[in-house]
Amino acid sequence: MSRAGSDQSRPSLLGDLFESLTERGRRFMGWRAGTGRDRLPPPDLTELGARLLSRRGEASGVVIARALLAAFEDAGPEGRLAFLRALADDFGPDPKAVQAALAALQQAPDAAGPMEALHSASEPRRQELLRRLNLAPGGTAALVRMREELLGHLRDQPELRRVDQDFAHLFGSWFNRGFLGLRRIDWNTPASILEKIIRYEAVHAIRNWDDLRNRLQPGDRRCYGFFHPQLTDEPLIFVEVALTRASPDNVAELLDLTRRPIRAEEADTAVFYSISNTQKGLAGVSFGNFLIKQVVEELKAECPNIRTFVTLSPVPGFAAWLEAQRRDEASDLISPEQRLAFAALDQPGWHRDAAGAGSMRAPLLAAAASYFLSARDKAGRVIDPVARFHLGNGARLERLNFLGDVSENGLKQSHGLMVNYLYDLSQIEVNHEGFAERSHVVASDSAKAAKPVPRP
Amino acid sequence: MSRAGSDQSRPSLLGDLFESLTERGRRFMGWRAGTGRDRLPPPDLTELGARLLSRRGEASGVVIARALLAAFEDAGPEGRLAFLRALADDFGPDPKAVQAALAALQQAPDAAGPMEALHSASEPRRQELLRRLNLAPGGTAALVRMREELLGHLRDQPELRRVDQDFAHLFGSWFNRGFLGLRRIDWNTPASILEKIIRYEAVHAIRNWDDLRNRLQPGDRRCYGFFHPQLTDEPLIFVEVALTRASPDNVAELLDLTRRPIRAEEADTAVFYSISNTQKGLAGVSFGNFLIKQVVEELKAECPNIRTFVTLSPVPGFAAWLEAQRRDEASDLISPEQRLAFAALDQPGWHRDAAGAGSMRAPLLAAAASYFLSARDKAGRVIDPVARFHLGNGARLERLNFLGDVSENGLKQSHGLMVNYLYDLSQIEVNHEGFAERSHVVASDSAKAAKPVPRP
Amino acid sequence: MSRAGSDQSRPSLLGDLFESLTERGRRFMGWRAGTGRDRLPPPDLTELGARLLSRRGEASGVVIARALLAAFEDAGPEGRLAFLRALADDFGPDPKAVQAALAALQQAPDAAGPMEALHSASEPRRQELLRRLNLAPGGTAALVRMREELLGHLRDQPELRRVDQDFAHLFGSWFNRGFLGLRRIDWNTPASILEKIIRYEAVHAIRNWDDLRNRLQPGDRRCYGFFHPQLTDEPLIFVEVALTRASPDNVAELLDLTRRPIRAEEADTAVFYSISNTQKGLAGVSFGNFLIKQVVEELKAECPNIRTFVTLSPVPGFAAWLEAQRRDEASDLISPEQRLAFAALDQPGWHRDAAGAGSMRAPLLAAAASYFLSARDKAGRVIDPVARFHLGNGARLERLNFLGDVSENGLKQSHGLMVNYLYDLSQIEVNHEGFAERSHVVASDSAKAAKPVPRP
Amino acid sequence: MSRAGSDQSRPSLLGDLFESLTERGRRFMGWRAGTGRDRLPPPDLTELGARLLSRRGEASGVVIARALLAAFEDAGPEGRLAFLRALADDFGPDPKAVQAALAALQQAPDAAGPMEALHSASEPRRQELLRRLNLAPGGTAALVRMREELLGHLRDQPELRRVDQDFAHLFGSWFNRGFLGLRRIDWNTPASILEKIIRYEAVHAIRNWDDLRNRLQPGDRRCYGFFHPQLTDEPLIFVEVALTRASPDNVAELLDLTRRPIRAEEADTAVFYSISNTQKGLAGVSFGNFLIKQVVEELKAECPNIRTFVTLSPVPGFAAWLEAQRRDEASDLISPEQRLAFAALDQPGWHRDAAGAGSMRAPLLAAAASYFLSARDKAGRVIDPVARFHLGNGARLERLNFLGDVSENGLKQSHGLMVNYLYDLSQIEVNHEGFAERSHVVASDSAKAAKPVPRP
Repeated sequence: MSRAGSDQSRPSLLGDLFESLTERGRRFMGWRAGTGRDRLPPPDLTELGARLLSRRGEASGVVIARALLAAFEDAGPEGRLAFLRALADDFGPDPKAVQAALAALQQAPDAAGPMEALHSASEPRRQELLRRLNLAPGGTAALVRMREELLGHLRDQPELRRVDQDFAHLFGSWFNRGFLGLRRIDWNTPASILEKIIRYEAVHAIRNWDDLRNRLQPGDRRCYGFFHPQLTDEPLIFVEVALTRASPDNVAELLDLTRRPIRAEEADTAVFYSISNTQKGLAGVSFGNFLIKQVVEELKAECPNIRTFVTLSPVPGFAAWLEAQRRDEASDLISPEQRLAFAALDQPGWHRDAAGAGSMRAPLLAAAASYFLSARDKAGRVIDPVARFHLGNGARLERLNFLGDVSENGLKQSHGLMVNYLYDLSQIEVNHEGFAERSHVVASDSAKAAKPVPRP
Repeated sequence: MSRAGSDQSRPSLLGDLFESLTERGRRFMGWRAGTGRDRLPPPDLTELGARLLSRRGEASGVVIARALLAAFEDAGPEGRLAFLRALADDFGPDPKAVQAALAALQQAPDAAGPMEALHSASEPRRQELLRRLNLAPGGTAALVRMREELLGHLRDQPELRRVDQDFAHLFGSWFNRGFLGLRRIDWNTPASILEKIIRYEAVHAIRNWDDLRNRLQPGDRRCYGFFHPQLTDEPLIFVEVALTRASPDNVAELLDLTRRPIRAEEADTAVFYSISNTQKGLAGVSFGNFLIKQVVEELKAECPNIRTFVTLSPVPGFAAWLEAQRRDEASDLISPEQRLAFAALDQPGWHRDAAGAGSMRAPLLAAAASYFLSARDKAGRVIDPVARFHLGNGARLERLNFLGDVSENGLKQSHGLMVNYLYDLSQIEVNHEGFAERSHVVASDSAKAAKPVPRP
Repeated sequence: MSRAGSDQSRPSLLGDLFESLTERGRRFMGWRAGTGRDRLPPPDLTELGARLLSRRGEASGVVIARALLAAFEDAGPEGRLAFLRALADDFGPDPKAVQAALAALQQAPDAAGPMEALHSASEPRRQELLRRLNLAPGGTAALVRMREELLGHLRDQPELRRVDQDFAHLFGSWFNRGFLGLRRIDWNTPASILEKIIRYEAVHAIRNWDDLRNRLQPGDRRCYGFFHPQLTDEPLIFVEVALTRASPDNVAELLDLTRRPIRAEEADTAVFYSISNTQKGLAGVSFGNFLIKQVVEELKAECPNIRTFVTLSPVPGFAAWLEAQRRDEASDLISPEQRLAFAALDQPGWHRDAAGAGSMRAPLLAAAASYFLSARDKAGRVIDPVARFHLGNGARLERLNFLGDVSENGLKQSHGLMVNYLYDLSQIEVNHEGFAERSHVVASDSAKAAKPVPRP
Repeated sequence: MSRAGSDQSRPSLLGDLFESLTERGRRFMGWRAGTGRDRLPPPDLTELGARLLSRRGEASGVVIARALLAAFEDAGPEGRLAFLRALADDFGPDPKAVQAALAALQQAPDAAGPMEALHSASEPRRQELLRRLNLAPGGTAALVRMREELLGHLRDQPELRRVDQDFAHLFGSWFNRGFLGLRRIDWNTPASILEKIIRYEAVHAIRNWDDLRNRLQPGDRRCYGFFHPQLTDEPLIFVEVALTRASPDNVAELLDLTRRPIRAEEADTAVFYSISNTQKGLAGVSFGNFLIKQVVEELKAECPNIRTFVTLSPVPGFAAWLEAQRRDEASDLISPEQRLAFAALDQPGWHRDAAGAGSMRAPLLAAAASYFLSARDKAGRVIDPVARFHLGNGARLERLNFLGDVSENGLKQSHGLMVNYLYDLSQIEVNHEGFAERSHVVASDSAKAAKPVPRP
């Protein structure tokens, strides 16, 4: 067969590919439904990947990238897993290039050039593949979904971790905070975004649109999210804020649909009472730290009367930890008196009985103080994940709130305990360093005072 | 000294830093002018870089990044060069990590894991530094300027090439085509962007605002640019397009201020007559390929009557090449008859004499055909850089235009020759592959016919 | 007291005015809450009106207008009514100017000038007052609310009709269709607008946000509204549209939450199934006519495949009319056979019994045809208000749909009858003229055929 | 011929109309060019007007309005004038309706109802015609152009004044300040708007785009305009503002291209140095008053450091007035000493001679003070039109600036004199009232002091 003929026939690969896609895949590619003629077998995803990395891929990269992502969405769970495994197995570093770079390094073990050449040579080829897939319209969102699927397989397929590292590396670069835009979310925000706020709220579930409006529309409520230019109608993370007089010690009054709003100028405190990530596929890419700090800056500029910035946070690990202490008779993190008092926790509804609740306050807060200030996990870390997040951001443990959340979930996970963390921008650098290097928890005097004095 | 005291004193580093900046640097940071008190010595950029990569940098990364970039802009040419050199020398890969990774690889030379761990270990630390600098507001633009400065030193300081590779790697990721937005530029575009079109136009200089309007406002003119979300008022690249009946063979009629526009619906051809990059600091990050193809898609959707997409392109290397052939008596790329005819080229104004110009047409076009189809540089590449760009994109050499540009520059660089390259989306993949793998130049019959038949 | 002193004291009127407003009124003025000092008596609205029309009002019109509108909102029902009455009594034409103009007209009864001078002289001064009130930020919206209140008093206070005419005249000019913008309302529209769609939907109530989404988000649904630049987050009128294959004959399938959407390109018909005005204060200012026609134009441009534009409309006057015919034994608009058949209508649930419903079809449709084609009210008009609207717009009565709406309300108002009106832009001018001048109802053959042949 | 047949033929009127339009008219209507077939005779504008007011016009108003405006643009100067005359002659009030209303008024001469009915009856029908013309897309702009043409005929055709009054009345309502939006104009404004700033600047001509940028881009410059929603890319009026330290006494330093900008925070004064209307067709509709006051509010909010708001204004009537005084030997508004001194004014370049200019200062400023404070025209008004505007707005005559504008035009119209008017919002109401009722000019002590003490 003549070369020319061969050349001319090849471009039809894309035509064939199109024929082989399902309706769903075609819609992803922005193409209209085909005719009724017989469907071709589905395209080979790995072959498409190789093609995208080839010479030809340079000229028609957008088209192939789009086709591969469409075919991936089409492929069904097994087909998709097969492609993810191919990413791990077939798109690693080029061994020849690595060998050559190693040889050069051995010649000049102390020179900077060869070591850096080794870095380039050892880049897994799937990184370039992912960069090229990102050329497709909607490519970034499709890759975030792809990684979400990947994460679901990591436990069973540890060799996929290598692929995950490359996703994480690229996403860290693409979702660099410099590329994110902070936007206020309020009652003038498009419904298509607001319904995602309802769906993704992870801390205090939003029951319906009235509940949502109650968190967005009043003059003493704010909500902010980070948006990425490529995911225009999806906040990556959002935080809900209440403007109040003094720091609240329970969440029910914040969410009360019948409360009377105050004017923003009357507030002296901003309370971050919920912060939620939305994209599972971006796990490990950190936004929350930047979001809180930038919202503090925004609010300072808008409402100079606000001087205090605190969270009202859940304590998701507390009840489980306390249970373990109670079971472990050797634990000296709770005293015999506390053990005795905690028996009442096993009675459902204990918190509704005023007397019983009153006598629980001191022992429970003392245990909470130990939980934050003394207890550590096997790796030497503070146990509570929410605490690790805020303390790691440089916040201070400010106040322990007895019965701050008496919802079913609040009682279950922390016997109702909630916590305020304080963000003081002038201190966060120092606080963070102490926490990161020495697991030192900066706490207010009142929080420290709740902890029982160790017996001699 | 007590620990607390030490802690409290440290944050003032940023205060001191601020004091040491010039007005210009402070404006970059968005701070107002200070008082008249004595200026501190300028901050140490390298120390700031180390600090940004440290633990502390995690908590206050945005602030340090902003400070470092401000101080860099302030530092003067020598201070800036010193920092660039420090990037090369002090922020390479961590040698210990590389050694450990190498050792692991030797243990299991065929396993995928160690090879990929080696990749991570050998990443120059300046890559992370650049990612963190990008956290600052305006950081992306500042880094693009930083690389522009770096490029100016590469010839003298070859060791800076390592730094340049890291910039190029990161910019390739950050300026991935998936993150660029195509926008039409017209007479409703803000003046702040339009003045950059005037400034950056690299092919046919825009003399003034009237000339600009003539290229943007009429119904048969278009201009499109790629914009990046972080550089909102700067097109990264833009292309100027004329909608015409039939392909034009000279540029003067396109730019004629007095011509009568046609309506877009009457056009059958779109002519890309100028394409300009704007950011020197993004050298090597390729946009033009994508831009032309997306503009073709846009125009197809908007004006279904347009079927032909061509460039009207300069031939910047032709006159120099021809001069070399004439000097090289052994060259068989031009014939003795051509040599004789070309003597007239040395007469200024030869193109204005109808008879003389007439007799120049055939030999000059024949030489041009040889220039594109036969001549190659030492590396075996097509000589003309504009030809390499369009042929590399998969375009076809469509027509050679005698006296297509009789401006002073046009005569000087190519004896007036201009060229049309044809973009046929259904062929570009094949064309590209042939060109990239075998330097095969796809040309129309008419272009090929201009070439003299080789003597036996 | 010196003149200067007097001058200087006067500006404080506005300060006093501010002191006398309630919190609500102040918020309307955009002012912050005052101090705790004693409240002054409320301002005299009529005096403020006179002041706004005075010389002084020219210099500080915006401030006085804002103050008057704030005080009106504050004034309580009686205070507001008193001001509306003052508009009728104290802000009519200037009698002296009218007398002078009449005298001039008597001098030259046939000249154009004096007659037109009379027009100016006889303009009620409240028209200028309303124009000046419109200077205030938010003035237009406040005046629309003011008229809404006014309309509530017209029955009891007929002399307020004069005031209403001036409102209607000014609103007709201010809300001229040339000043309205058509906007698509979809799932990307701000929630603050969408909640108004829920609230104002007047034809088929929207039960909740899911129901709303079902009408906005699918590819075969559209919603459009007219917006005025001064009422930015309030559609004045909106229409809901379904894109279908063939005209639907019942509304339940259109609103079915579980139906499977089609793609817009598959539709051949656009169905206007609900059209709602939102502002009671704009009663009598006609938008619907323009809205439907412009939406037809929009859809023709967007979906060339759509060729038929019909409504699916309720028949709100039918059941009452039929009841009257049944009671009036002399009526020859229904036959004895029909009378007999209609007895079954009194049985609740008659429509659910297949046989019974089947035998009701012919007599009911025949009565419906008479209702539209023959019956007229005392003024000689078609009885049904929805019919008057669409036929007055130039639409054609296209089809009578038996049991098109079996909701409780549908059965009650029209025994389930619904109607399609057809908008054929090439015929609407002729249709309208026939209807407006001769009450001629243009109907399709099928609609006419439903009508029983009159007995000889 | 049957009625139906007649009906069907009529709609083609619009088709015929379209055929009869020129290309320009068709473009106005948004239609594409027709075929080459013979053009019909141009449509009769007056007949179209009658049709638009008719019953039929109600159904197809937008189409007819669009056609009439297109035909008007097409009609040539004579055709347009004929239509304007028809507006005056054929579209006045309906005489029968007026007679009926007069009869009713005579029956009840004191009742409010009949007098107001007379107002409606005497409305010239062209008002409704103009309102319906405004239905067309682009109708408002077309009507503004129509009035501009009308204004050019008023001198020759006084009967057109009646038409002009109706335009003025409607425009007063449509361009009510409540419908205007204030927008900042800066270097990010679209070029299509900026070129209008260049074109319309009426006080200190803008020479080119560099001059424009110098007035918009620096941090101590502002420009604001009023925009109407229907004329989106046309400011109706705009004001140029300089932020300075202290009030400037000459315009050259404000416009100096080489001056060094200050930061906005350093300014204590805002100088309104140019205010220009753009639409001749809106003559008599007053915006300037509102514009200045709103810009004062804007600047107060943005730059609390700015406390003084002044103009730097030309004195266009001064030189002519002074010439008249010099010719009129009986005038006692200038003294014999002044007359003597003013002889030097006849020497070109007098202002460049330091000594000569020095001795001119006192007599010229004294004459200027008389010009503002004492001289009045036959109607008893202040002579200078710019002074009437600012004093009528409630501003104060603050300072007389000798040689404030030594451009050719400045010397010619006012011997170089410029004036500062001060806007003190707390005083403008009182100032305005005094000026409007008693022509009382409020002036600073320094301005008053320049006036010579009258000789006893």
